Amino acid sequence: MASNSFGIIFRITTWGESHGSAIGVIIDGCPAGLALNNEDINLELRKRRPGTSPYTSPRQERDQAEILAGVFEGQTTGAPLSIIIPTEDARPAAYESFKTLLRPGHGTFTYHAKYGVFDYRGGGRASARETACRVAAGAVAKKLLAVSGIQVAAYMRELGGIYLPAAPGDNLPALAQRVAASPLRCHDSSTEPALAALLASTIAAGDSLGGIVECLAQVPPGLGDPLYEKLEARLAYAMLSIPASRGFELGEGFAAARQRGSAHNDTFICDEQGTLKPASNNAGGVLAGISTGLPLIFRVAFKPTSTIAQPQQTVDLGGNPATLSPGPLARHDPCVAIRAVAVVEAMAALVLADALLLNHRAQLKNT
Amino acid sequence: MASNSFGIIFRITTWGESHGSAIGVIIDGCPAGLALNNEDINLELRKRRPGTSPYTSPRQERDQAEILAGVFEGQTTGAPLSIIIPTEDARPAAYESFKTLLRPGHGTFTYHAKYGVFDYRGGGRASARETACRVAAGAVAKKLLAVSGIQVAAYMRELGGIYLPAAPGDNLPALAQRVAASPLRCHDSSTEPALAALLASTIAAGDSLGGIVECLAQVPPGLGDPLYEKLEARLAYAMLSIPASRGFELGEGFAAARQRGSAHNDTFICDEQGTLKPASNNAGGVLAGISTGLPLIFRVAFKPTSTIAQPQQTVDLGGNPATLSPGPLARHDPCVAIRAVAVVEAMAALVLADALLLNHRAQLKNT
Amino acid sequence: MASNSFGIIFRITTWGESHGSAIGVIIDGCPAGLALNNEDINLELRKRRPGTSPYTSPRQERDQAEILAGVFEGQTTGAPLSIIIPTEDARPAAYESFKTLLRPGHGTFTYHAKYGVFDYRGGGRASARETACRVAAGAVAKKLLAVSGIQVAAYMRELGGIYLPAAPGDNLPALAQRVAASPLRCHDSSTEPALAALLASTIAAGDSLGGIVECLAQVPPGLGDPLYEKLEARLAYAMLSIPASRGFELGEGFAAARQRGSAHNDTFICDEQGTLKPASNNAGGVLAGISTGLPLIFRVAFKPTSTIAQPQQTVDLGGNPATLSPGPLARHDPCVAIRAVAVVEAMAALVLADALLLNHRAQLKNT
Amino acid sequence: MASNSFGIIFRITTWGESHGSAIGVIIDGCPAGLALNNEDINLELRKRRPGTSPYTSPRQERDQAEILAGVFEGQTTGAPLSIIIPTEDARPAAYESFKTLLRPGHGTFTYHAKYGVFDYRGGGRASARETACRVAAGAVAKKLLAVSGIQVAAYMRELGGIYLPAAPGDNLPALAQRVAASPLRCHDSSTEPALAALLASTIAAGDSLGGIVECLAQVPPGLGDPLYEKLEARLAYAMLSIPASRGFELGEGFAAARQRGSAHNDTFICDEQGTLKPASNNAGGVLAGISTGLPLIFRVAFKPTSTIAQPQQTVDLGGNPATLSPGPLARHDPCVAIRAVAVVEAMAALVLADALLLNHRAQLKNT
Repeated sequence: MASNSFGIIFRITTWGESHGSAIGVIIDGCPAGLALNNEDINLELRKRRPGTSPYTSPRQERDQAEILAGVFEGQTTGAPLSIIIPTEDARPAAYESFKTLLRPGHGTFTYHAKYGVFDYRGGGRASARETACRVAAGAVAKKLLAVSGIQVAAYMRELGGIYLPAAPGDNLPALAQRVAASPLRCHDSSTEPALAALLASTIAAGDSLGGIVECLAQVPPGLGDPLYEKLEARLAYAMLSIPASRGFELGEGFAAARQRGSAHNDTFICDEQGTLKPASNNAGGVLAGISTGLPLIFRVAFKPTSTIAQPQQTVDLGGNPATLSPGPLARHDPCVAIRAVAVVEAMAALVLADALLLNHRAQLKNT
Repeated sequence: MASNSFGIIFRITTWGESHGSAIGVIIDGCPAGLALNNEDINLELRKRRPGTSPYTSPRQERDQAEILAGVFEGQTTGAPLSIIIPTEDARPAAYESFKTLLRPGHGTFTYHAKYGVFDYRGGGRASARETACRVAAGAVAKKLLAVSGIQVAAYMRELGGIYLPAAPGDNLPALAQRVAASPLRCHDSSTEPALAALLASTIAAGDSLGGIVECLAQVPPGLGDPLYEKLEARLAYAMLSIPASRGFELGEGFAAARQRGSAHNDTFICDEQGTLKPASNNAGGVLAGISTGLPLIFRVAFKPTSTIAQPQQTVDLGGNPATLSPGPLARHDPCVAIRAVAVVEAMAALVLADALLLNHRAQLKNT
Repeated sequence: MASNSFGIIFRITTWGESHGSAIGVIIDGCPAGLALNNEDINLELRKRRPGTSPYTSPRQERDQAEILAGVFEGQTTGAPLSIIIPTEDARPAAYESFKTLLRPGHGTFTYHAKYGVFDYRGGGRASARETACRVAAGAVAKKLLAVSGIQVAAYMRELGGIYLPAAPGDNLPALAQRVAASPLRCHDSSTEPALAALLASTIAAGDSLGGIVECLAQVPPGLGDPLYEKLEARLAYAMLSIPASRGFELGEGFAAARQRGSAHNDTFICDEQGTLKPASNNAGGVLAGISTGLPLIFRVAFKPTSTIAQPQQTVDLGGNPATLSPGPLARHDPCVAIRAVAVVEAMAALVLADALLLNHRAQLKNT
Repeated sequence: MASNSFGIIFRITTWGESHGSAIGVIIDGCPAGLALNNEDINLELRKRRPGTSPYTSPRQERDQAEILAGVFEGQTTGAPLSIIIPTEDARPAAYESFKTLLRPGHGTFTYHAKYGVFDYRGGGRASARETACRVAAGAVAKKLLAVSGIQVAAYMRELGGIYLPAAPGDNLPALAQRVAASPLRCHDSSTEPALAALLASTIAAGDSLGGIVECLAQVPPGLGDPLYEKLEARLAYAMLSIPASRGFELGEGFAAARQRGSAHNDTFICDEQGTLKPASNNAGGVLAGISTGLPLIFRVAFKPTSTIAQPQQTVDLGGNPATLSPGPLARHDPCVAIRAVAVVEAMAALVLADALLLNHRAQLKNT
């Protein structure tokens, strides 16, 4: 089982509740010899930090990670990395008043059904705060991937029904930098004012929005495995494990279901350097579960934030009607998809780091 | 790794190439005491058999499965089940002429990139013929689930851009029976003539179509795990491992990204029997990775069949331009989504059987 | 891979180096509803604490564990448990002088061969200090097992060639208590003076001793799995993962290789309560990988402590002859087997907790 | 769980009962490009075939394996290998008369306790016939290992209390050939007459003998992992999964528990070629879980065959006293350790092939 772990060779295990004293992640399987320090991780954590713009939760968490083990003299040693992120702005008492209420869109009901108990303080283990650990681990995965020239960049593709343009895939580090600088995680500043206006009116109405995140990755051909460990299967698995995600699509995705084969098929060419490759990329960078060498491209749909400032009718654990009122819960993100951009990018990096390490012995002549 | 296995406790491992002498599946972890015989499996296999209508491949495979091990005196014993399906209509020679061609939409290129070798006969291991093994294993999973009252039914929701209505979720065995009786896997016969006409014209044009399969499941609350083993994550993983699938969405799915939280959230009620449950099912039957008790509902997008009867420009392994001409490859499905209905249903059953067996010790008081 | 994890359902992951700021363990898969607090863990940790008798290392580590996550209002919640043990008596500088020396019996050489780098401070990750995490996790496993009436007790069976009598298996909690009270982990005080004398003379000679630990467990019939997950296979796997262990045997063990079948076979009887069971226990409580209901009994051999106070000839990483001299390394255990008693008991508890949770769905009628 | 699988990257799954129509094994994770045919496997299977000498079971099974999938044009393709071994001399009726008897030393009782059902025909899944699948898979592992210069050889070290000399470790292929030519799997023909005489008198008395198998392997430094996946832990796990095994020891093993550290420690030298290595091999080729480059050496103890020709008192499933009489069961091995030599060798090869494939990304600079 190990429902708190992800990955086969490059494997993470996360722990901690939203309002406990700390959260953390163990990374097992990172090769020795990778330069790594706290700042490598904190740089990425800042991309999902709350409290940094009017468009994210006002909760003040600096999310300063510390590597407790696995690094010696500035390099990984092959030992497990243990990264801890202390909690600073915990307010468990704020949740006392609705500890028995079934919060719409939250895990209160299902955790009770499964476990008979629920740490209700800020969502406990079900809180999106856990995703900070994914981003911390993703930071390590990205450093490992960069050594092999693999890059990843995610960005907002649609927010509250407003479409944003696709990003160019030719310079992913530059793209990632542009996205990190945007409070709404857009790669293209021209759409930001419309999004900001929509968010402002939604916040004013005490409501929330959904969104779609797109992710690009530049990878060599041959990553991924056939059948049950297809690269797109691992990516879908990773993405649907992110809180609030509701869908995944690769390349043309759901639109491919409306295409003819003659239009959808990517034919093959031999380019000027003599490299064989698909002439187009409707497939999204993968064929039969294995990367083609063209950019990986996929999208993840996020539902609107479940916690809203409007009062909601519900029942308590005893079945009595009750009203869930905003109060401290108002410390919420108006659109979880914004901070999810960093999480999508991190999870993609984790999948790719694992695929890279798994790929090594596919052919005897590479051994 | 084990890229040919799926599942944690109820775990399958499949083997065999499209034009080898047989294909097969091992099922490990099935509880002892389940009544099982060959016909239980062959009944399900008939749902994805080729050669049974003008809308599927004319390849003649009766797909008669035989249980070689794991059953004694009509019951499972706890030993691994070994199911074999001999190949009858293999025509490997038919593939000789284009063994060096990079077939658009197929694994030829990526298998060569990864393994340096490719069993080109009918797609070898990358062939959708492997999905017969998934359906065989799914037949066992369904029998196991039925003992706990869990039912699954999939059906065509969209084909070549034509939408079909959603099915009622109140009687899944009846729904499954209706779908099995339809050559196009529709639950609703009124749309079939339009689909048949579209398929006929597409076949005449030497082209192919994509489609979207919807799946419903009736499960008790509490199945699935939090975090990385969320029920929807396991389902997405399973569905994106099916050949030609391009997307997965749960409940409202991608449309949820365009909803407001106040509209999307399912509030909770206490019904007349005193049962707590969501009042609506925008979530698709899952909250925080764990089933709510309302029907699971998800969709899977399939690209149009890659093999088409029109000639396609491509290159060979040496980089020389070449034309891929139909010939024997014309033994293809005009729309893979039709036969994929049975595969989606089988994979859903495998995920649920595993979740059921994993769930047992979540609470100490259940032990 | 995940070489720092153990277990399938009840799964631990440990982290930390001997002279880092802390070590810790994550436990995933513990059922919700188990009462648990820090003292439950610290009680067990005291059994392997150094610095408590002349017969163990003088290093002063109080080994005060803290549960950082997974417990809410005194009970486990189904979330992962994170337990941390801060390091107090770290003296990394003491290891500076021989950081390039290949220490006989230690991992310096092989870690360099594998990883190209080695955290030499007190053995880094290869240090037996990691076993504190195993004992902490074992404390949780024992509490879980106790709910099902399963008990475990280990004790010294042979030390430096001096045999100790076998312990009675009828009251394991009492046995465990007697053993915990003995500084040499003997259940039988009559042999202790001879052992103490041998240890004193060995310490005086700057040398070290090996030993054999025996472990008993009272378990119901039916635990364990056939074939590759046999209960004895999991136990052997667990025991040979303990630093300095060199052998494992079940029941009559190596002596069984010298018996005739007519003498070794345990016949079956039906006792006065109508219970079927083996009439004797040469098998050590397991047949065909599954527990019989008679006490599990196995032994683990430990080599003499590798770190000794005598100077040893060796070479450095550059191949130059060098002498490894005692100095601070003298903070060693004269016989690792003594403190290993607690570790054997903990690892046995981890194997059994996992077997208990895995056992639940073996038969359909139990579901 | 997956109790019928072994290995992480190079992973086998076996199926089939003793008196079913066939048994088989799937190998997942074998790199593409390895030359392989049926005869490679049958060559190894002949080493554990029954019916070839007066010292093994008279059951006539030619054990002719056939590769059904995973090989194309004489080479592995990266697809799973499916190997089947049809059963020829099945006599299920012979077991009818004691289907309710609890056979001493067998799984009848524990399988009933766990599964509530037991395929009693010749031991069903619990039969040692399953080990033919291990040997078949081991044949593939050995071919893979040979490419990297890794060799394995096992032989009888003790039989019925008679010790045999240790074998030289300098030429393992020659050693393996000598052992294969000996009906008693001895490397040294001088002891064979005494063993043959002991076996003859034991057979005449209707009794059985135990034995100890020793195994040597020549491996490079750096294989294996620290902590829970130590090379010796994986070997112990593998060996204790073999039917009738009762103990495992590495290097000096249990005898190390009686040595002083000053005697047991292997110091390090730099040889004439400038290679760093241990000067002696008391450790048995492993330090801290990772290979040193000196020969791996370990021993496995086997209990005497449980099935004996003498009548044995027992009870039936209803608790009624009964006598188990020889009859057809007399088709047994007088000493299972003889045919277990091939199984120990195969399991060692499986552990090493997995360690080899896992090792590849331990250091970044090797990537």
